[in-house]
Amino acid sequence: MSYRHEQLSEEKVFKDPVHRYIHVRDRVIWDLIGTPEFQRLRRIKQLGTTYLTFHGAEHSRFSHSLGVYEIVRRIVENFKGKPNWSEEERLLCLCAALLHDLGHGPFSHSFEKVFDLDHEDFTREIVLGDTGVNQVLTKVDPNFPQDVADVINKTYRNKLVVSLISSQIDADRMDYLQRDAYFTGVSYGHFDMERILRVMRPMEDQAVIKESGMHAVEDYIMSRYQMYWQVYFHPVTRSAEVILTKILHRAKELFHSDYLFKLAPTHFVSFFEKDVSLKDYLKLDENVVYYYFQIWQDEDDHILADLCRRFVDRDLFKYVEFNPGNQYRDLMDLKECFIEAGVDPSYYLEVDSSSDLPYDFYRQGEDEERLPILLQMPNGELKELSRQSDIVEAISGKKRTDHKLYYAKDLIDQLPEDSDIKRRINEILKG
Amino acid sequence: MSYRHEQLSEEKVFKDPVHRYIHVRDRVIWDLIGTPEFQRLRRIKQLGTTYLTFHGAEHSRFSHSLGVYEIVRRIVENFKGKPNWSEEERLLCLCAALLHDLGHGPFSHSFEKVFDLDHEDFTREIVLGDTGVNQVLTKVDPNFPQDVADVINKTYRNKLVVSLISSQIDADRMDYLQRDAYFTGVSYGHFDMERILRVMRPMEDQAVIKESGMHAVEDYIMSRYQMYWQVYFHPVTRSAEVILTKILHRAKELFHSDYLFKLAPTHFVSFFEKDVSLKDYLKLDENVVYYYFQIWQDEDDHILADLCRRFVDRDLFKYVEFNPGNQYRDLMDLKECFIEAGVDPSYYLEVDSSSDLPYDFYRQGEDEERLPILLQMPNGELKELSRQSDIVEAISGKKRTDHKLYYAKDLIDQLPEDSDIKRRINEILKG
Amino acid sequence: MSYRHEQLSEEKVFKDPVHRYIHVRDRVIWDLIGTPEFQRLRRIKQLGTTYLTFHGAEHSRFSHSLGVYEIVRRIVENFKGKPNWSEEERLLCLCAALLHDLGHGPFSHSFEKVFDLDHEDFTREIVLGDTGVNQVLTKVDPNFPQDVADVINKTYRNKLVVSLISSQIDADRMDYLQRDAYFTGVSYGHFDMERILRVMRPMEDQAVIKESGMHAVEDYIMSRYQMYWQVYFHPVTRSAEVILTKILHRAKELFHSDYLFKLAPTHFVSFFEKDVSLKDYLKLDENVVYYYFQIWQDEDDHILADLCRRFVDRDLFKYVEFNPGNQYRDLMDLKECFIEAGVDPSYYLEVDSSSDLPYDFYRQGEDEERLPILLQMPNGELKELSRQSDIVEAISGKKRTDHKLYYAKDLIDQLPEDSDIKRRINEILKG
Amino acid sequence: MSYRHEQLSEEKVFKDPVHRYIHVRDRVIWDLIGTPEFQRLRRIKQLGTTYLTFHGAEHSRFSHSLGVYEIVRRIVENFKGKPNWSEEERLLCLCAALLHDLGHGPFSHSFEKVFDLDHEDFTREIVLGDTGVNQVLTKVDPNFPQDVADVINKTYRNKLVVSLISSQIDADRMDYLQRDAYFTGVSYGHFDMERILRVMRPMEDQAVIKESGMHAVEDYIMSRYQMYWQVYFHPVTRSAEVILTKILHRAKELFHSDYLFKLAPTHFVSFFEKDVSLKDYLKLDENVVYYYFQIWQDEDDHILADLCRRFVDRDLFKYVEFNPGNQYRDLMDLKECFIEAGVDPSYYLEVDSSSDLPYDFYRQGEDEERLPILLQMPNGELKELSRQSDIVEAISGKKRTDHKLYYAKDLIDQLPEDSDIKRRINEILKG
Repeated sequence: MSYRHEQLSEEKVFKDPVHRYIHVRDRVIWDLIGTPEFQRLRRIKQLGTTYLTFHGAEHSRFSHSLGVYEIVRRIVENFKGKPNWSEEERLLCLCAALLHDLGHGPFSHSFEKVFDLDHEDFTREIVLGDTGVNQVLTKVDPNFPQDVADVINKTYRNKLVVSLISSQIDADRMDYLQRDAYFTGVSYGHFDMERILRVMRPMEDQAVIKESGMHAVEDYIMSRYQMYWQVYFHPVTRSAEVILTKILHRAKELFHSDYLFKLAPTHFVSFFEKDVSLKDYLKLDENVVYYYFQIWQDEDDHILADLCRRFVDRDLFKYVEFNPGNQYRDLMDLKECFIEAGVDPSYYLEVDSSSDLPYDFYRQGEDEERLPILLQMPNGELKELSRQSDIVEAISGKKRTDHKLYYAKDLIDQLPEDSDIKRRINEILKG
Repeated sequence: MSYRHEQLSEEKVFKDPVHRYIHVRDRVIWDLIGTPEFQRLRRIKQLGTTYLTFHGAEHSRFSHSLGVYEIVRRIVENFKGKPNWSEEERLLCLCAALLHDLGHGPFSHSFEKVFDLDHEDFTREIVLGDTGVNQVLTKVDPNFPQDVADVINKTYRNKLVVSLISSQIDADRMDYLQRDAYFTGVSYGHFDMERILRVMRPMEDQAVIKESGMHAVEDYIMSRYQMYWQVYFHPVTRSAEVILTKILHRAKELFHSDYLFKLAPTHFVSFFEKDVSLKDYLKLDENVVYYYFQIWQDEDDHILADLCRRFVDRDLFKYVEFNPGNQYRDLMDLKECFIEAGVDPSYYLEVDSSSDLPYDFYRQGEDEERLPILLQMPNGELKELSRQSDIVEAISGKKRTDHKLYYAKDLIDQLPEDSDIKRRINEILKG
Repeated sequence: MSYRHEQLSEEKVFKDPVHRYIHVRDRVIWDLIGTPEFQRLRRIKQLGTTYLTFHGAEHSRFSHSLGVYEIVRRIVENFKGKPNWSEEERLLCLCAALLHDLGHGPFSHSFEKVFDLDHEDFTREIVLGDTGVNQVLTKVDPNFPQDVADVINKTYRNKLVVSLISSQIDADRMDYLQRDAYFTGVSYGHFDMERILRVMRPMEDQAVIKESGMHAVEDYIMSRYQMYWQVYFHPVTRSAEVILTKILHRAKELFHSDYLFKLAPTHFVSFFEKDVSLKDYLKLDENVVYYYFQIWQDEDDHILADLCRRFVDRDLFKYVEFNPGNQYRDLMDLKECFIEAGVDPSYYLEVDSSSDLPYDFYRQGEDEERLPILLQMPNGELKELSRQSDIVEAISGKKRTDHKLYYAKDLIDQLPEDSDIKRRINEILKG
Repeated sequence: MSYRHEQLSEEKVFKDPVHRYIHVRDRVIWDLIGTPEFQRLRRIKQLGTTYLTFHGAEHSRFSHSLGVYEIVRRIVENFKGKPNWSEEERLLCLCAALLHDLGHGPFSHSFEKVFDLDHEDFTREIVLGDTGVNQVLTKVDPNFPQDVADVINKTYRNKLVVSLISSQIDADRMDYLQRDAYFTGVSYGHFDMERILRVMRPMEDQAVIKESGMHAVEDYIMSRYQMYWQVYFHPVTRSAEVILTKILHRAKELFHSDYLFKLAPTHFVSFFEKDVSLKDYLKLDENVVYYYFQIWQDEDDHILADLCRRFVDRDLFKYVEFNPGNQYRDLMDLKECFIEAGVDPSYYLEVDSSSDLPYDFYRQGEDEERLPILLQMPNGELKELSRQSDIVEAISGKKRTDHKLYYAKDLIDQLPEDSDIKRRINEILKG
């Protein structure tokens, strides 16, 4: 039997708290899970700094990736024999699901922002480059790695396949909402996935949902909405991210200013120099980052040392509501005050904005066009979700933004009680 | 108001997936949680290498410690106003619960075995030494750190207090059984803790259980039994631990043989030299260990490099049933064969035995005497659990042991197909 | 000690699948639960005919009533010592919570509609009349029954007390959403009640919610919305209710036309004659109703016999979408066709409309004014929920209605295949 | 397509709180569910009087029957294509699973005891007699009803089929343990059924369990043990059953003594006369029984009226430990005292014993021989469970019995405080 169709002599299962069991029958999947590049995902937390807010959120991208694979496995099992579905695409779907996050590094969000990277580029490189993953995929077919990369990159010719991994109701989101809810322990994030999978139907360009499952989809959209505001955009998490970003900026600045590190930033050099090879990239996991931060607490540079201590000991910045739109002047004043007080505002003051669009059927002019969620009516007609659901209609296309100013309150509190600067800073912060 | 009795202006809660919410009202507890020594527990997994078997088991000792604190908080809330209970001991119970695992390092089990350490010594040092934790405790009362250390050390004068943290049905076990079950996703580990807490009564020397709660206690004992064999002693986990142990041994051996490390084992030196200061100890968390293992994959020493690669990439040893008692000769033969085959048996072959005693009312001559679980009958009389419960009686005092031989199967498989040694090895291993 | 303050020598608990345990310490509550009038609630299903759609929904008003009591018990425990709260009202709250549904009869909705009754009148009569419940309440204080009746009737002077039982986020709703979700098994109906209870604060006129709990309240409103459309208004349930209503109508008509029943409708006479005494009312539970329906299957009146058979054997009416507003003419035509076909449209055809208003802050000119849900901002200010929550704002005040036509499809299907009437009927029904 | 193989145009699902969804694809199954005999199971509680102890236990035999069907459906889906399994038996398994409890009447246990009936006889009669169920089964094949009856009767030629419905680890038990745990809300009754189903293998004479699933089976056996003692044999439930039995006895006695009932026991006559026709039997459901009990509260016979009131209002007998083996003399004395006190001991005093054998591999000389649970070792060998499991071995074959004496404590309490009889009675009861 060809490698593509090779089955394990006995099904393997992973015990998973979210999906109960993750089932593997394909030799290809089993081999992919065993590659160093996939195992590396164990060393990268799914939610970055969120565990500093919700202590249960210590789960890795490894478990999420298995979860997405399992959901797609169930979807394509349901699709079997249905119109518009070709069993030829089955293994491709499973591989793309399993590998879709392969290029994530530690604290991806912050690293991507500071070093201007895109984890999707690295996913592609791992799939196509000289890696264990590529070896396994190539054994299936020399063109197979490219197909997998295309699906993840959303450029694959069969859009139905793409939609299982990347759409507004894809396996990726269905797994992370449930998984992140489970590990944080919040009561949001639950919806009837079993029902959604049962009413999902393959169409030419995307998977659609039978209209009888609309309420389960509404519940899913609401879960998403709640998870964003309760978990993903939690201000304490963002405070930790602000500090993380500042550490990376500071290290980079010191590096370029020929500062003599006690512990040289070997693993970071290629990032600082904007020339990251795949090999360098794969070496960087959260353990390595934490190792540096821990050692850098003893650096001579006070700012780097202090920021690292804050991150390691979870001594985070405080925050207040702050609207950069109409408080531009306040921000300028604050920065001046900080400078006057001897506290560098580039490192100890930051305005961070998060915004979310819980559901949209179309965003004109955006790079990444969003597929709408389509309901299939009993008569076969397709209707866009928000036209049928009052609740979804109500939040559709409505962007919500939250602005906060993060700062080292302790440094300000240390200023003399009667100091003028302290008084001015606190006045601005109190709005 | 004194620091001992200081309450937060508003109760703080942590969202916890196991206990739903963890409630903090005492300033002392809040301050302890904020210390660097307590935050360090976030960087040490509760179950060491178990996440390589059960991918969900990525939770830290931090979340377990909060959980034990919360259970004790609920117990002492129930005890309020009951005979034999003094509110004076309340804060002591809470602090000891929170801090009882403070001295754990990364992969404690393996480190303790290889370097002959005891994490309890470090707990004591952290509580009594020059640390953030000690500063907080001392603010309560100069004798308070010693009291906390005594409770954790089981030498505190009030044995009731000790029994809440260290007995056969203590807050420690009640938390970890439930927490480990939750994060691994296994269906064992559940019991009606709410009921157990409701029927727990303070007595002079220990907490006892009202007889009406006996079945909930039986369920707890069974959970414990199942968790040990299904999770804690899982052979894949033990395989990872065998490799970990071998790495530590190899590094130590190389260090003493003046091998020139590319990355010097700075963080390990004091362990190799059996002179671990508190400061050194606190610096070592899992991130640091992983950092070394990752870098050491490129060491010149093949054994160290190979073992590190195995651990990092989860390329573990295989195992077979093996009874060292009556297979001593086999073991000797195997070692010889390995040597002949050019595979060092000191690093690629290991017999590991695990054994458990799910419940015992007395173990004569043991260092650590076990308190029996006592049931309080309706007439006030106390009876030892196994005298009332058939199920517990059935397993009481029965030690069960599992022996396995772990070895690098891939190295043996690589031997020529027709080689005599390969044949001999496989014969022995097939029993 | 006075009866009002009498505590049980030992707390009693009921195992409850929704709230885990229901705790009773007050002798008064314990005695109320033991009265025949309260035990009678065991013989009345919480969701009437819903079990014919969701087979798990077989739970009684008894368990719901205990649940509402338990929630209020937790609320007032949290209120203890807070401003605006008087411990004097504690027992009153508990009793009103426990007894608020006491006047419900079997299939209340249908009975109230057909016989023009109001279960709240009977609740009042049971509380104030010659009953076991009244005896218990009177022992507390001769005025106590009136106070309890006033709270349930929403006329009690202290509006805060009323709001715990009857408002848009009261203990009644919080229990039934969770309980009905649990027993039907649907995945909606879950929200973080523990959090809501923690952030509920007593104010002069009503309980309010601290703003930090807004998202939990949003989740609760969404649960309510989903439960209404997925469970409470399910068309199959409504079909059963249509038949039930028809049976009651038919029996009443036969009674007034001097039809000679084989089994005389003794228990119904006072309902038919609009002169229901409390004693008669209390005798009627679901068992009695079912007994009649079962026996009436053998009545000579074909319509009564057939309708009863349908109800007992769950041979329900089918349904189609039907808008009585713009399909008035269709309805008239259908009725004519039915008559022509020899099928009495008064009994075999019915348009049923359900509508729901998931949240509203004010409904002008309505009998029952709705208290808005108020959020307490960090600065103490109170804001109406929909002003703070986008989601709630989106559905606030929006009434949604569902119209369906129910009919005995089998009788129409039995008409000769080529009959003109059959064709006309099916044409109208297909819209 | 033949009726046997006819599939519904679209799969139907029932929402089930225990198994999430119950899936029906076969027309035969759908038609069976719609028969009056199957719908009748809605009017019979799964756990009889248990709801008077655990208020959530109001679920019916209808939902349990669907659950057993669903479990067997999943088992045979797993069996598909495996050795020893013939797809020919599939529909037979499903039908037998669905219908196995069809002959249960209201409060079966008590009725069977008082009237010397066996519900299995009625199951057979319903399957083979003139019923809707028989019509459906006959359409499959004229011999099919007999096959179904044989499977339920354990006499079917293929013992593997029988073992799915009736063995020590069958679908019946797996459903009721989980279902009864869910509805009562107790924390016992949970085990990893998904795992058990995955490791179940068809063998010639019975289904066996792969050895790797042993711990899940242990957990199942423990659940069973706990459920028996915590739920099924709860003394309050048994107290209600004692009263129920007494009512039936009294009514029978009155009937035979020509007592003139106000409400004649029409539905019971054939039971009293030991000549129960199928038609009579099917008419009797719990509603009917309750109807009589309610009306009989006004009978002239004080004993019948009083017992009915007790049952309806849940005014149950109290109980004490009592061993009829060595307290025979006490029992005689008690009876005499009761007579002297004017309280009829035949109706107000009863010793009830419950006993359970949680697991046994063989019970010599018993009518109903028990199949052992067999584990299939990796080498294919079969081993009896208790030989592999310490825990199961410990409880295997150990019968545990609980004896209690139930009596109308209130009637004794009413005796004059200084009466000699009262004193004597209480002395005996205090042991």
